Amino acid sequence: MEKEISAEIITIGDELLYGQVIDTNSAWLGQELGLIGVRVRQITSISDNPQAIKDALTNALSRAQVILMTGGLGPTKDDLTKHTLASYFNTELQLHQPSLDDVEAIFRKYNRPMLEVNRQQAFLPASCTPIRNPLGTAPGMLFEEKGALVVSMPGVPFEMKRMVTDTVLPLLQQHFWLPKIIHKVIQTIGVGESFLAEAIAEWEDNLPENLKLAYLPYLAGVRLRLTGLSDGVHDLEAQLREQVDKVTTLIPDAIFAYGEVSLEEAIGQLLKARNLTLATAESCTGGLVAHKITSVPGSSAYFTGSVVAYSNAVKTNQLGVSEELLAQHGAVSEETVKAMAQGVRQLLHTDIGLATSGIAGPDGGTPEKPVGTIWIAYADAHQTVARKISYNKTRLLNIEYTALQVLNLVRQSLPAQVAG
Amino acid sequence: MEKEISAEIITIGDELLYGQVIDTNSAWLGQELGLIGVRVRQITSISDNPQAIKDALTNALSRAQVILMTGGLGPTKDDLTKHTLASYFNTELQLHQPSLDDVEAIFRKYNRPMLEVNRQQAFLPASCTPIRNPLGTAPGMLFEEKGALVVSMPGVPFEMKRMVTDTVLPLLQQHFWLPKIIHKVIQTIGVGESFLAEAIAEWEDNLPENLKLAYLPYLAGVRLRLTGLSDGVHDLEAQLREQVDKVTTLIPDAIFAYGEVSLEEAIGQLLKARNLTLATAESCTGGLVAHKITSVPGSSAYFTGSVVAYSNAVKTNQLGVSEELLAQHGAVSEETVKAMAQGVRQLLHTDIGLATSGIAGPDGGTPEKPVGTIWIAYADAHQTVARKISYNKTRLLNIEYTALQVLNLVRQSLPAQVAG
Repeated sequence: MEKEISAEIITIGDELLYGQVIDTNSAWLGQELGLIGVRVRQITSISDNPQAIKDALTNALSRAQVILMTGGLGPTKDDLTKHTLASYFNTELQLHQPSLDDVEAIFRKYNRPMLEVNRQQAFLPASCTPIRNPLGTAPGMLFEEKGALVVSMPGVPFEMKRMVTDTVLPLLQQHFWLPKIIHKVIQTIGVGESFLAEAIAEWEDNLPENLKLAYLPYLAGVRLRLTGLSDGVHDLEAQLREQVDKVTTLIPDAIFAYGEVSLEEAIGQLLKARNLTLATAESCTGGLVAHKITSVPGSSAYFTGSVVAYSNAVKTNQLGVSEELLAQHGAVSEETVKAMAQGVRQLLHTDIGLATSGIAGPDGGTPEKPVGTIWIAYADAHQTVARKISYNKTRLLNIEYTALQVLNLVRQSLPAQVAG
Repeated sequence: MEKEISAEIITIGDELLYGQVIDTNSAWLGQELGLIGVRVRQITSISDNPQAIKDALTNALSRAQVILMTGGLGPTKDDLTKHTLASYFNTELQLHQPSLDDVEAIFRKYNRPMLEVNRQQAFLPASCTPIRNPLGTAPGMLFEEKGALVVSMPGVPFEMKRMVTDTVLPLLQQHFWLPKIIHKVIQTIGVGESFLAEAIAEWEDNLPENLKLAYLPYLAGVRLRLTGLSDGVHDLEAQLREQVDKVTTLIPDAIFAYGEVSLEEAIGQLLKARNLTLATAESCTGGLVAHKITSVPGSSAYFTGSVVAYSNAVKTNQLGVSEELLAQHGAVSEETVKAMAQGVRQLLHTDIGLATSGIAGPDGGTPEKPVGTIWIAYADAHQTVARKISYNKTRLLNIEYTALQVLNLVRQSLPAQVAG
């Protein structure tokens, strides 16, 4: 096997040290590097301070072959990374015309006057290879130093991610001789980590030496990631496919997708394949289910709309939930959530209606219906299914969990031949 | 001014480097230390590896007087911190009876058999001062080294936080003579970083020596953070208040809140103060505006509901947007978005109606209305205001940006006396 390539991440910015911003960039970078077989050895967060930047860089270069730096490239004066790197690598700033063209294009597009500080962003260290930033005004920089690569990027997550995906990862794969690694992700929902582990323990124990399984739990289930490291003998892709097929027979109901597919995308594919339409009636989720569904491009093919019925008047006037039913059972009840699902289906003329009603907290609980008491429902032309959830972490987690559960209810309630 | 005390944080665990866990402990520690006037200089995340731990500790001790370490204290074999620290400080593990009593009490409480690995957790380096862990089985450890303090704690957030609050912070305040630091956050929206910087440049340049400004940009604006370090002469709180008042006069329209308040919370406070109710009609935002509003506890006091009108039929049938108007101007137009805002206001009987309609992408654009063409509207009993946005990053960012802009439109459209 080839020698392993080590990486270090350096994140720059006082806001990280003061704790006003949580460093999510590093975790994302750690995952992405892992996927191409580069192992992160250290993450260092430091101040916007030239000496701290130089020291961190020197230390990192003594240990790793890849250094990814984020932050400190904005137009304001507390951003010092670029000047510090020019000094560190003994070079001068010079105008990089393609970067200036990019910056100018951005300002033209948004029809705003360009300031001198923005023009300055196109001045880059002469010895670096500029890295294009399609989503912002600060280009990235790549330096080579004794066989190691040093990359500096903005700290804005979406700008950085796009640059890494488009440019940095392909560049690392080209520069280093990376081992062949393939990952297969199996998305599950509704079964806890320990139960899942028990159900597949024997299969996991008998995996070939070069395949490794990781459990990546999330709010409503576990992502399984099977990682194969080529042994140079077997067809790695075939090896992985065989094992994915095996584990599928063990937990068929828990799996909603393979690969990087979200639950809302998987639901969308099921609906499109069957030519079905969907609408939602949301009380406690307050629009999050609709937001999730419509975050998928092309969702207008199967999603008609939603009625967010936060007040009982909307439940009655728009969704047709009778005042008697509300008075008798309350807004958070099996009867109400079923009536909401049926109501929105009729109102918006869709095949399927979904509904949520619950107490997301922190207030509003009663002894009979404490915070975290939530009802969800699915209705189509043939059936109406409701389910009770008891889940109480924080308000936002309760809402998020409910949205995932009601989407999962679509998968579970559609006829079996397409629900897998 | 007292000599500033520097801290470093070392977080230990492969899960941080692989990106399977986001390091939220460090941000929390940075905030807590900042509040008692200790400044974090560096955060270092490393592997569960003795040499990496020793190197990180040596480097940190060369720069800082306080080292807080988290992680690597669990009972499983990949947790090596304790043995490494015993070796680093040239000491032996010995039984610490009070810690054993605590561990035994926890197992009694949960009625579970105690394993030998748990008993081992009460063996601590002889030269350390144990730190009680009321919520878990791994005690913390405090070492003194040439005037510096080294604290090792578990990585489990709630255990660590309790130990810091109960023991570590009081201990630091007692051991060091700490300066006073106060942060003021000013939340702005709608003005880019460069423009904001230009508008307040003169004020910023004339800030007293002991006050420092930081720009923390986000999707639709910038958070400004003014940090004051007590000079022992002036009243720091009064100094900061004076400067916050000054900067407010320079950018009054951009500021939506002071302190850690989200835009949706600020809007909620405005509505509550005026006893106004709100409903939304969402096309391109697909429910996100409603989700944001309802993520605030108590939002049912002013939020009635939303109609997510993804299909034109819903715009016509529920919101009363005429088919002629849609045919003439299209769904993404000033006329349609105004009719939607008025329509939802009437349908749900609220004081204010908000609406969004746009092309979030990646598909659906035309030469006249490219992806990122978005209309937003505000309607109340006296006026209907619409605004066009051109914003095209990714689908999700376009949606998120639109949601923030339409919430900001509430602030901008309410009569002036309360909009500040």
